[in-house]
Amino acid sequence: MRNIALILTYVGTAYHGWQVQPKDITVEETLEKACAKVVGHRVHMTGCGRTDAGVHAKRYVANFRTESTIPVDRLPYALNTHLPGDIVVTEAREMPEGFNAIGSCVKKEYTYLIYNSRIRDPFYVNRAWFYPKHLDEHIMQAAADQFVGTHDFAAVRSVGTDVRSTVRTVYYYEVERTGDILSLRVCANGFLYNMARAMAGTLVWAAEGKIRPEELGAILRAGDRTAAGPTVPAGGLYMTRLWYETPEVSFHVE
Amino acid sequence: MRNIALILTYVGTAYHGWQVQPKDITVEETLEKACAKVVGHRVHMTGCGRTDAGVHAKRYVANFRTESTIPVDRLPYALNTHLPGDIVVTEAREMPEGFNAIGSCVKKEYTYLIYNSRIRDPFYVNRAWFYPKHLDEHIMQAAADQFVGTHDFAAVRSVGTDVRSTVRTVYYYEVERTGDILSLRVCANGFLYNMARAMAGTLVWAAEGKIRPEELGAILRAGDRTAAGPTVPAGGLYMTRLWYETPEVSFHVE
Repeated sequence: MRNIALILTYVGTAYHGWQVQPKDITVEETLEKACAKVVGHRVHMTGCGRTDAGVHAKRYVANFRTESTIPVDRLPYALNTHLPGDIVVTEAREMPEGFNAIGSCVKKEYTYLIYNSRIRDPFYVNRAWFYPKHLDEHIMQAAADQFVGTHDFAAVRSVGTDVRSTVRTVYYYEVERTGDILSLRVCANGFLYNMARAMAGTLVWAAEGKIRPEELGAILRAGDRTAAGPTVPAGGLYMTRLWYETPEVSFHVE
Repeated sequence: MRNIALILTYVGTAYHGWQVQPKDITVEETLEKACAKVVGHRVHMTGCGRTDAGVHAKRYVANFRTESTIPVDRLPYALNTHLPGDIVVTEAREMPEGFNAIGSCVKKEYTYLIYNSRIRDPFYVNRAWFYPKHLDEHIMQAAADQFVGTHDFAAVRSVGTDVRSTVRTVYYYEVERTGDILSLRVCANGFLYNMARAMAGTLVWAAEGKIRPEELGAILRAGDRTAAGPTVPAGGLYMTRLWYETPEVSFHVE
């Protein structure tokens, strides 16, 4: 059986996230149906993460197994003819047997966009969170610095999925302003449910003076979700980079 | 009566262009309804041009008359609370009696975006024309140069509106590539129906070798629509800049 990884990009607005659900249309289901038409049999996609409803992916990785002999360089074109315009496969790669889009992923980067201007921009609707009050990016960076390192992130997740541990390592968290757009880029070895959006909401609280950056360590140690900032809207969140390591392959998608 | 100019920006995807139509939803109608709620009486908006269905505006100017005493700096906020997310009023200005959003406009710039890459980008659906075959921007610029000046543009318009003359002056036409995005910026004292999209289609034909740039003068002189390139899709077109001159005011919107 061939093990094929797909690199894709999608606008999440029309989808109830990645994972197949009984009623709502998801990215996984849409991709599996398109793929079945190309390879001629039912396909199960393993995705690199369960993005929520409305969350986007500039880069996303999924893998599936097939006996089809279609060349990998033809696959993106073949799949794209069966996919709607808001999901695009940009690349396909042959992977070793042991590769798994979620299990082999060692680091991920999410980017959260805030449109921070007094008047909204219609071109960013569902693509950045509109926040009219000025946010100081330096205060946000000082707060973001407190998340870097290995911590228990229970204070910035939503309960809802069972996880063995709520300890994760954040490698970097960078806040950058380009005109009216604030980009919050965070890289970790894994993200708890809603963690990226709760961390972004906590940086906004810091900029609003509701918490001081130096308090964040204590908030994480206390593990109290109500002490951290809100889970900000899904439309501003993008999966942007992925790092893979297996005994046979090592690569980076950005 | 006060004469108020509104500067707005809109995503045209959901609208059948600017001008009020019997059945379909238009930007004008949507703006007039929102404005009536704010000023307390029916309003007629005069727009700076009839953008087609699906065409966007980074900048657009409209004016209306009212007895309302609402301060101009409050108007954008008041209007935006009644407008859908894809239309935003960014500014309002008090204008002299004689100002008219279309009659006082002396120059306009339209920008046409082409997403020119082998694989499409879902974030540009309805916002740039996806064209997978590589287009040489230098050939397109050489063709664009032929449009600059005062010419009869009958060869690059669609018949459908009565106009006294098909002679217009193009002040500049610039083709620029930034990665996979080609930007075609054209400024003229007026645009005939579909002229911006037919000129863009003609530049694409030039890049494809279907016409040589130096033939364009003869095509314009012959006035034969079938000799020029096709009218390219509306989703790539943006109104981007406007210049106004009246005896009392002179300003530039970009």
